[in-house]
This record gives sequence, C-alpha cells and structure tokens, in this order.
Amino acid sequence: MKIIADENMPNVEALFSHLGTVELVNGRNLTHEQVKDADILLVRSVTKVTQALLAGSSVRFVGSATIGVDHIDLEYLAQANIAFSSAPGCNAEAVADYVFSALSHLYMTKKLPWLKRKIGVVGYGNVGKTVYQRFAQMGCEVCVYDPFKVPDQGDVNFVSLAEILTCDVISLHAPLTTSGSYPTKDMLGAEELSQLSSGVAIISAGRGGVINESALIERHKQLQGNMHLVLDVWDGEPLINQELAAIVDIATPHIAGYSKQGREKGTWMVYLALCEYLKIDAPSVVRGDAISAGWFASFDLSIQLPHEEVLARCVQAIYDVARDDVRLRYKYRENKESNVFDWLRKNYVERDEFNTCLIGSTGDASSLLGAIGFSVK
Amino acid sequence: MKIIADENMPNVEALFSHLGTVELVNGRNLTHEQVKDADILLVRSVTKVTQALLAGSSVRFVGSATIGVDHIDLEYLAQANIAFSSAPGCNAEAVADYVFSALSHLYMTKKLPWLKRKIGVVGYGNVGKTVYQRFAQMGCEVCVYDPFKVPDQGDVNFVSLAEILTCDVISLHAPLTTSGSYPTKDMLGAEELSQLSSGVAIISAGRGGVINESALIERHKQLQGNMHLVLDVWDGEPLINQELAAIVDIATPHIAGYSKQGREKGTWMVYLALCEYLKIDAPSVVRGDAISAGWFASFDLSIQLPHEEVLARCVQAIYDVARDDVRLRYKYRENKESNVFDWLRKNYVERDEFNTCLIGSTGDASSLLGAIGFSVK
Ligand SMILES: NC(=O)c1ccc[n+]([C@@H]2O[C@H](COP(=O)([O-])OP(=O)(O)OC[C@H]3O[C@@H](n4cnc5c(N)ncnc54)[C@H](O)[C@@H]3O)[C@@H](O)[C@H]2O)c1
Ligand SMILES: NC(=O)c1ccc[n+]([C@@H]2O[C@H](COP(=O)([O-])OP(=O)(O)OC[C@H]3O[C@@H](n4cnc5c(N)ncnc54)[C@H](O)[C@@H]3O)[C@@H](O)[C@H]2O)c1
Repeated sequence: MKIIADENMPNVEALFSHLGTVELVNGRNLTHEQVKDADILLVRSVTKVTQALLAGSSVRFVGSATIGVDHIDLEYLAQANIAFSSAPGCNAEAVADYVFSALSHLYMTKKLPWLKRKIGVVGYGNVGKTVYQRFAQMGCEVCVYDPFKVPDQGDVNFVSLAEILTCDVISLHAPLTTSGSYPTKDMLGAEELSQLSSGVAIISAGRGGVINESALIERHKQLQGNMHLVLDVWDGEPLINQELAAIVDIATPHIAGYSKQGREKGTWMVYLALCEYLKIDAPSVVRGDAISAGWFASFDLSIQLPHEEVLARCVQAIYDVARDDVRLRYKYRENKESNVFDWLRKNYVERDEFNTCLIGSTGDASSLLGAIGFSVK
Repeated sequence: MKIIADENMPNVEALFSHLGTVELVNGRNLTHEQVKDADILLVRSVTKVTQALLAGSSVRFVGSATIGVDHIDLEYLAQANIAFSSAPGCNAEAVADYVFSALSHLYMTKKLPWLKRKIGVVGYGNVGKTVYQRFAQMGCEVCVYDPFKVPDQGDVNFVSLAEILTCDVISLHAPLTTSGSYPTKDMLGAEELSQLSSGVAIISAGRGGVINESALIERHKQLQGNMHLVLDVWDGEPLINQELAAIVDIATPHIAGYSKQGREKGTWMVYLALCEYLKIDAPSVVRGDAISAGWFASFDLSIQLPHEEVLARCVQAIYDVARDDVRLRYKYRENKESNVFDWLRKNYVERDEFNTCLIGSTGDASSLLGAIGFSVK
C-alpha cells in the first residue's frame, strides 16, 4: 500500500509506516503525477484536495490532520467513492488552555477575579464544549449560547445571546458564517457591544469577523478602556487592525490551537480513522507513542495562595499568552509588512498542553487544577 | 527596646519582635516626633534619614533594607555615633535571574545561541560577580570589566572596556557615576557603540545613563535593527524614552531586583547586623524562617531538548521577563502619564528566585541548571 503524506504532518512516518510505504511530499505544490498511484493521501490545510488532483488516481482514502475541511472538495470525494477523514476537535484542549492562560494573565496583571464572575461561552462545538466544561467543573457560574444545539445535553446551561451579553467574561468559539439562520458575522456588533457592562472581558479565539472591530474600538472608548480584550483572531487576517491591537491586553496571531500535542492528535485521529477504514481492530501504534509527553513531567507546589493565583502560576509555567503577545508586538514594530502574521504562525514556539503536566498540590486547589486541565497527583 | 520600622519591610515583625517592641510606621512621612524615643530605626529607601530626623533622639542603630544608601546621611550617623547597616547584594540573585530570563527570551524568540557566544560583564560588584560566576560555571567564554577591582581574584577574566565591546552579549551592572577616574555616565556612547558588531545583545540592568540613549537609537538604525536590547533601567526614570522603548526587545520598569526572596533577604541582612550589634551570638530567627520557600517546590523534566531550550523552559516557568514587558507596554498604551513607571514598580507581581526551585533532570543539563541558579536534585 502506498501512502503519500505531507512532510509537515508530525509523526506521520512513525504512525503510518507499518501500514504501507510512506512517501513524504511538500503538500504545498502536490501534483496529480505524485499521487496517481497512491492508495492513501494524507494532507494538511495547505493542500487543495480536488477532482483535478485525484481523478484517475488509485487513491481511496484521504486523511486531513485538520479541524477545517475548506481545502477539501468533499462532494467530489463522496461522488468518487473516496473515503475521507479529518481531525475535528484535535486542538480543542489547546484552545481551552489559551482561554485559561488569557484569564490567568488578566488576573495576574489586573486582579480580574474571574472564578467568581459570570461566564458566557459562545459556540458549543468541540472547543466551546471543552471550555464550558472546564468552567462548569470549577464551579463557575457559566452559560453557553449555541442556537444549533438542542438544549438536551444533561445540565448544560444553554441561554440566549442576550444573556451572554450580561456576562463578565465572554469567550467566543463560533465559526465565521455569513448565511443560514444564525450567521455569526458581526454577531457582536455595535448594538450587542452597547449592552456589555464596564469591566467585561472578551476572549476571541474562534474566528475574526464575529466581532465587528470598529464597533469594538468605539465601545472600548465609550467605556474609557474599562474592557479587557484578548484577541487571537482578526477580521482580515493576515492583516490586523493596528488601532485595535493597540488597545487590547493581549494580541496573538491565530495560534490558540497550536499545541504540540494538538498537532500530534491531528495525525493520530487520521491514523485511527484509516485503521478503521482498513478494518484493523487493534492498531499497532498506541496513544502514548503517538502523543508526546510534556516537557515538565510534574510540579510540586509548596505554598498556599489565593485560588486564582494558584491556577495562574501553574498555567503560566506551562503556557503564558503574554509570550506570544510580546513576540507579535515586537515583530510588528520591527517590520510592518503584511507577512508578519504568517511568519509568526510558521515560526511558532511550540507549547505543551496542561494535561501533560502532573501537579502535586493539596486541598481544593487540587480539584480546581484538575478542572482547568492539569493532571493532578 | 523600641524598634520603629517601615510597615512595608517584608517580615519585619516576625524577625524583630523578639528583640523589642516593634512599631510599624509609614516610612514616607516619618517625623522626628515618631522616632525620638526609639532605640532602633528600620527603613527602606523612601525614608530620608537625616540629622533633622534623628538629632536628640535615642536612636542608636539604623538599618536600611536596601542596597543603596543615597537616602542616608552617613556622615551625620558616623558623627552622632549611630550604628548603621544596609543590605548590599540582597538582590544580586534576583538581577542575575533577570539576566538569564532575558537571554532565555532571546533564545526562544530569536534563537540567539548565547551559551556558545562571547559574554562581557561590566561591573564586578555584588550583581556583576553573581552574573559572571553563573556564566563561568556554565562554561561560557566570559570576561568582565571593572577598573576598581584589582585583578587578583582567582581566575576571574578581567579585561578592558575595549574588549567588552567585542563581545556578543554584554550585561551591564555598573552604578551611575559622573565623577572619579572612571565615571560611568555615557560609558557606552556613540564611539563605543560604533564598535559593537551586528547581532550584539545588550542587557542593561544596572543604572540608566550608563548607555547614551540617543547614540543607542542611532546605532540600532545603523545596524538595521540587528541588535538585541533588553532594558530595565532608563535615563531620566520615571520617564522613559518611548522611541527607544519601541525598538527594544524587552522593556521593564527597573524591576530586575524585585524578587520575593531578595526583599526578604534585605530584612534578614539588617536583622543579622542588628543581632551582631547587640552581641547576640545565636539569633533566634533562622534563615529558613526569614526567607520564603518558592511557589514551585520542584519540577521534574521528562524530555531531552537543546541546552538553551532546557534552560529557557525552566527559567521561564519561574520568571519570564516577557510578562513584565507586556504589562509595561499595555500600561503605557493605556495611559501616557509620567507615573506609569512608578505605578508598575509599586504594583509589581512578585516572583521567586530560581534557587527556590528544585529540578529533577539528568545529564549535563543538570549541571547547567545548577550553574544558572536552580537547585538540582
Ligand atoms: N484560534 C485558533 O487557533 C482556533 C483553534 C481551533 C478552532 N478555531 C475556530 O474556532 C471555531 C470553533 O471550533 P470548533 O472546533 O469548536 O468547531 P465546531 O464546528 O466543533 O463548533 C462550532 C460551534 O459553533 C456553533 N455555532 C454556529 N453558529 C453559531 C452562532 N450563530 N452562535 C453560536 N454558536 C454558533 C455551532 O453550532 C457549533 O456547535 C471554528 O471557527 C474554528 O475554526 C480557532
Ligand atoms: N535594575 C535593578 O533592579 C537593580 C537591582 C540591583 C542593583 N542595581 C544597580 O546595579 C548596579 C550594581 O549593583 P551592585 O549591587 O552590584 O553594586 P556594587 O556597588 O556591589 O557594584 C558596583 C560595581 O561597579 C563597579 N564600577 C564602578 N565604576 C565602574 C566603571 N566605570 N566600569 C565598570 N565597573 C565599574 C564598581 O567597582 C563595583 O564593583 C548599581 O548601580 C545598582 O543600583 C539595579
């Protein structure tokens, strides 16, 4: 069996080589010639998988180690009877880590007591659900808005968008949509932003365009800066609105999902899907071989601190959003070209997920640390 | 015995109350009335200790939990036969931690391979010596310039200022002086800066004014930005040159010395000096009670990485200079007033010293981690 795989898919040889001959390619300029006698094609988002690429080839399974499928002509694949699998949710933990690192930053720099505040999550997909559940497990007052989910999922506190706007912390995890019954484009426009109260914190790590950026700048002025903003996604990426960047607490280049283990989970999910397609009951690669251990195996804490500070210090030791903000701002000061954003993403300093680190702690901090995503002794 | 002490001296009651009655005061507006029947006076840098304050009082020992003595009229104290003690070097470890956090940042964001570069230290006082010795213990090629130290101190590699200017990394730890045989004011002026080579990294955590800031901006332009700058001290503090701040990698508000244990060491050193003055042979407070444990008792590492990265990840888990840069820049964007600098210093988020954390690691990384300041299992 011949497997053609993007050379930038992490671990791809280690996982797939026992299933066939793996040939690594540059996914950016893949040609029909390269894939025509392959059985399996493994791609990332840089490869457009179209009829032109595959028609007349022997490819019967396409795997994409991504959560999005914009680069895949799904209709053609279905019609050509080519199986397809992607990696939905592979970076949900990474984005949730980002959200809590953002809150940790706001607590450490501005004493925002988010644990006791009302939290609103927008979108209850793979990411939103992970974020919601961490808050819920921590005992926070949390609610979620997702018009496409039927409120029958256990005790999930589904609410209206209007109620989200009354929250003290709002975390956005909806995709960008411009049609359908609930388009998300400009979902937080002038009208909605006017309802936010002073001191609100907004974390935006879904898609740019869901917040109307000029309305946001206006509202920030009206509230005299009494607004905490953490933005990972921007309208018009890879360009970013510098006026907006200047007023936000933290600005990062669409990297909320960039954890080392998240990327590896992408490959791993495609591997499992292929094994299932091939009817292999007991895949010979196990999770522990496919997903890296973290750099810090364990921490032991020795001091009692307020809960938010315990959380913040542990979170920041693994991943502090501030480091990505510093880098973005430095690069933009140094070089105003449009490719700064993409450069930062390509040269991202990989980080571990909280779940890779085992923390030795005592008392109620330990259950909070577990809820936020750490392993706890 | 009556002890008057600044209420902001950490641990002061815990340490001194077994020696006498401790009365806490606001050191900023201390009056003669308040000190006149005291025996011992304990201050920080906010209290001016003058003849006007002390003449006619019963004070016979003044302790200042600071490295500087600019706020003390030493001549008057000597003449009035009042004993005096301060805390030289109490923050040397903290500043050394800052230096290595700066290098860690440059490694993680710009891959600066500082371990293999030529390092120059300026000033071989409490701070410079600590910094020099860490580099030397790591096996780095390090030299130091200090015209006031006789080169007889073991194998310390004393060199000329000209040689320092050939280094790849320069760490400044001289005081600001405008007279004497080697005034430090503008020590790095246009002439000296012109000799630095492209790609040089300068860490300035001694005093502002030692580098000529307009010459630095000029040289940075000439080198087309090929210069890495980390500045903690500024000419004209609490104002800072925003044009300079915009081009540096890391800008912080004179906080290199602000560790929790450093502040506690200040009190502790004054306590030991007072015990000696009082001829108490076995002080009843021991070091472990006076200096806090760190927040992370220990780390265990699980992965092999390049040396600089091992160091950077451990360093940044304890203290990442980036966090202080983010905060400074955010505050200045929010508010351009002159008091931002002092506000940031007063509201500093305390950090632990590397030496409080015990790291479990193996191989040669373990000796490097020990040399950089950590405790190693
Ligand atoms: N910043 C990053 O690095 C990063 C990383 C991962 C995901 N994302 C983005 O975050 C978004 C969510 O990712 P996901 O993996 O959870 O996707 P998902 O498809 O699993 O979930 C999206 C959810 O949003 C809901 N939704 C759609 N329209 C909505 C509306 N009008 N109001 C509220 N909810 C609405 C959907 O019903 C769905 O439940 C996606 O756009 C994804 O591209 C960004
Ligand atoms: N950024 C911070 O937070 C921070 C913290 C601690 C100390 N400092 C400052 O750093 C400086 C050093 O502190 P320290 O505790 O080591 O002081 P120190 O007095 O122990 O040492 C200063 C050293 O500088 C040397 N020196 C004087 N003139 C020199 C010259 N022209 N060239 C080279 N060396 C010269 C002296 O000989 C002395 O050895 C001081 O100015 C101190 O105020 C800053």
